[in-house]
Amino acid sequence: MRISDIHITPVAVPDPPLLNAAGLHAPYALRLIVEIVSDDGLSGWGEIPGSDATLSALEQAADRLIGMDPWGLNAIDAVLASLAKPDERGATPWDQRTGVHVRSAIEVACYDLIGVSVGRPVVDLLGGAARERVPFAAYLFYKYEGAGGEFGFERDESATGWFAARAEAALDREGIVAQAQAMIAHYGFKSIKLKGGVFEPQQEVNAILALRDAFGPDLPLRLDPNAIWRVETAIAAGRQLDGALEYFEDPVRGQENMAAVARAVDIPLATNMCTTSFADLPGSVARQSEAIILSDHHFWGGFRASLDLARFCSIFGRGMSMHSNSHLGISLAAMTHLAAAVPNLTYDCDSHYPWQDGCDLLAEPLPIEDGAIAAPRGAGLGIEVDRERLAQLHQQYLACGLAERNDEIEMQKVQPGWSFQATRW
Amino acid sequence: MRISDIHITPVAVPDPPLLNAAGLHAPYALRLIVEIVSDDGLSGWGEIPGSDATLSALEQAADRLIGMDPWGLNAIDAVLASLAKPDERGATPWDQRTGVHVRSAIEVACYDLIGVSVGRPVVDLLGGAARERVPFAAYLFYKYEGAGGEFGFERDESATGWFAARAEAALDREGIVAQAQAMIAHYGFKSIKLKGGVFEPQQEVNAILALRDAFGPDLPLRLDPNAIWRVETAIAAGRQLDGALEYFEDPVRGQENMAAVARAVDIPLATNMCTTSFADLPGSVARQSEAIILSDHHFWGGFRASLDLARFCSIFGRGMSMHSNSHLGISLAAMTHLAAAVPNLTYDCDSHYPWQDGCDLLAEPLPIEDGAIAAPRGAGLGIEVDRERLAQLHQQYLACGLAERNDEIEMQKVQPGWSFQATRW
Repeated sequence: MRISDIHITPVAVPDPPLLNAAGLHAPYALRLIVEIVSDDGLSGWGEIPGSDATLSALEQAADRLIGMDPWGLNAIDAVLASLAKPDERGATPWDQRTGVHVRSAIEVACYDLIGVSVGRPVVDLLGGAARERVPFAAYLFYKYEGAGGEFGFERDESATGWFAARAEAALDREGIVAQAQAMIAHYGFKSIKLKGGVFEPQQEVNAILALRDAFGPDLPLRLDPNAIWRVETAIAAGRQLDGALEYFEDPVRGQENMAAVARAVDIPLATNMCTTSFADLPGSVARQSEAIILSDHHFWGGFRASLDLARFCSIFGRGMSMHSNSHLGISLAAMTHLAAAVPNLTYDCDSHYPWQDGCDLLAEPLPIEDGAIAAPRGAGLGIEVDRERLAQLHQQYLACGLAERNDEIEMQKVQPGWSFQATRW
Repeated sequence: MRISDIHITPVAVPDPPLLNAAGLHAPYALRLIVEIVSDDGLSGWGEIPGSDATLSALEQAADRLIGMDPWGLNAIDAVLASLAKPDERGATPWDQRTGVHVRSAIEVACYDLIGVSVGRPVVDLLGGAARERVPFAAYLFYKYEGAGGEFGFERDESATGWFAARAEAALDREGIVAQAQAMIAHYGFKSIKLKGGVFEPQQEVNAILALRDAFGPDLPLRLDPNAIWRVETAIAAGRQLDGALEYFEDPVRGQENMAAVARAVDIPLATNMCTTSFADLPGSVARQSEAIILSDHHFWGGFRASLDLARFCSIFGRGMSMHSNSHLGISLAAMTHLAAAVPNLTYDCDSHYPWQDGCDLLAEPLPIEDGAIAAPRGAGLGIEVDRERLAQLHQQYLACGLAERNDEIEMQKVQPGWSFQATRW
């Protein structure tokens, strides 16, 4: 089996006006869809965050992979490593490195292709299921009114239930509790993550306390200020939230600051911002910067790298959860297969999927029931891409005119003069 | 595909009277051969060091695996973990834990079975070849006269070349140099390891210096006293050997002592004795006990664990080599597939195979050419087990009466009253 063709399709998917430390989500989230075609006519799919820079790197890589064996992942990785430019994660909540994204897109598509070719699900290629169902957390956002996409900040008046609720504004604790109630009623999630870093810290602390009051002490809660708090702010908040948080995600920036907070508060710290690559792991061990690492196969370079990260967590006593950005069903399937294969996945995974639900490119989206997803038992990722829908999402990409994610620019449209601050409170 | 049967065959393979820190090799080395049979009539093979204790643990495990899916390695591992008794490595040069051996035997046989079922070599199931040929080192031993096995300490008078030379005694530097010359002439190895810990340290230092004189400075040399030297002895020897050794393997016992030697000598230290499990890795990082870890899929619990160890080495700047005990062709094939798939294998692998060459149970033994072996491109491990030969080796096991490896007892037959000392010089 050889790689005979690689199709790369940039797409734009409606995204509500969600607030975060970097600003505001644009009306569309960009994704890159990769289809690797083999000489025997099979296809494997991958999906990663989209940007012009990643698209360019992916196109350059694709040219070099034609004729290679999709099983030869080490050889493919060597080619991709030789092409990757030095790049850095950046200060934004999302990872800006193109190299790891390209490796992830290609590796996941190869695994899908391999699975399809041998008639086994990807989870089996990764060591088999360590769990039948992968639990996800309700992912709450402060937000403006609107559901994103072609409706801009307008409502779809025909929507009901969660699909109506997600168009509501949520700018205070009442809004956050209502959002949580609607999301959990629809999906059955058993834990909650609140994206913070948006409002003054006490307001976000109060929102967590309101969620605890609304859902009781048995529903695990997490808060993620995306690293824009000062150490003393995080410590003060952490002391208020002691007993109320399952974990405290990236309250501050950098391993040293995280370690300082970890020493001062009793809540486990989690990260997908200060320990985000293998090069960061020795520093994590030396500094004890966090108790939990959020894996993300898009940012760590694929499935095998993520399993290696899982082993690191097991060796060094780190818990493991999973990070998410706005995504479609290919990424959700990949996340689910991976999470199912990680023996030491100790926390419910994050997923933005409820915010994109209904806009997917899968012919049959993965069902979320009781807050969990079963890894599909079909061959490969076990998904079927609806090519007509893919074409529509590509048209949206062409029409929306976005070239990269820039939440600061979007925020400035609402709050002129607003600027991102790496440390705000 | 389901596991329908597991056959476990203890075998005994002729082993020459090789000397090491623990005493003397018995005339037979024990191995356990595992054949996992699937419900569609395919077979996968594994091989591990033999002992009554491991045999018993393996038999107990096998009963529990019938009906399981060989792809479901995480589920299989969970069953094996539930059965494993707490066990320790022990002070001997070889690892005495039964749990890791059982996991290795089962996992390797499952990978062989999976590879056979999908028509791909094991190396491809492990991420594909990072190298076409796996280099091995010449593995030298001080020894008494004889080739082991049914001949006891007698010679096979019809043997020629290496097969004659390996029956010669090697009890001084001249004998070691002659052994190296014969082994390298036959196999083409490009590096040399001398098993030390046998004679007074200066004699072994002199043997290394004699090898350097005989082969020149470009042939890498290693010395392995199997942890029975004192720190001051190792430092004094290390200073004499500065510039002559590629690495110094386990000169002393334990991570603290290794770290003390590492601080005092300029030669990289390697280990398969002080850092031998995932539980040892945090201590290795904290103490900087060695620069190189010798992996061994028999001792680390299989292929995936070994790949995880490789990632650890990459993260923490450790070099990686591969350890060996007396073994047959199933283990050699497994070692070769694994080593071919490890991107950061930085040193030639060890193998005892030249000492067992000619006694193998493979229909076609793997050719060693120019000191290297190509991972077979056939399905699975790419080997065919000669069942008649397997039966003969099992008869030898029944006839030899050995129940475990005990080099001390063998040594006492030659040197009455001799006893193993964890630290001798």
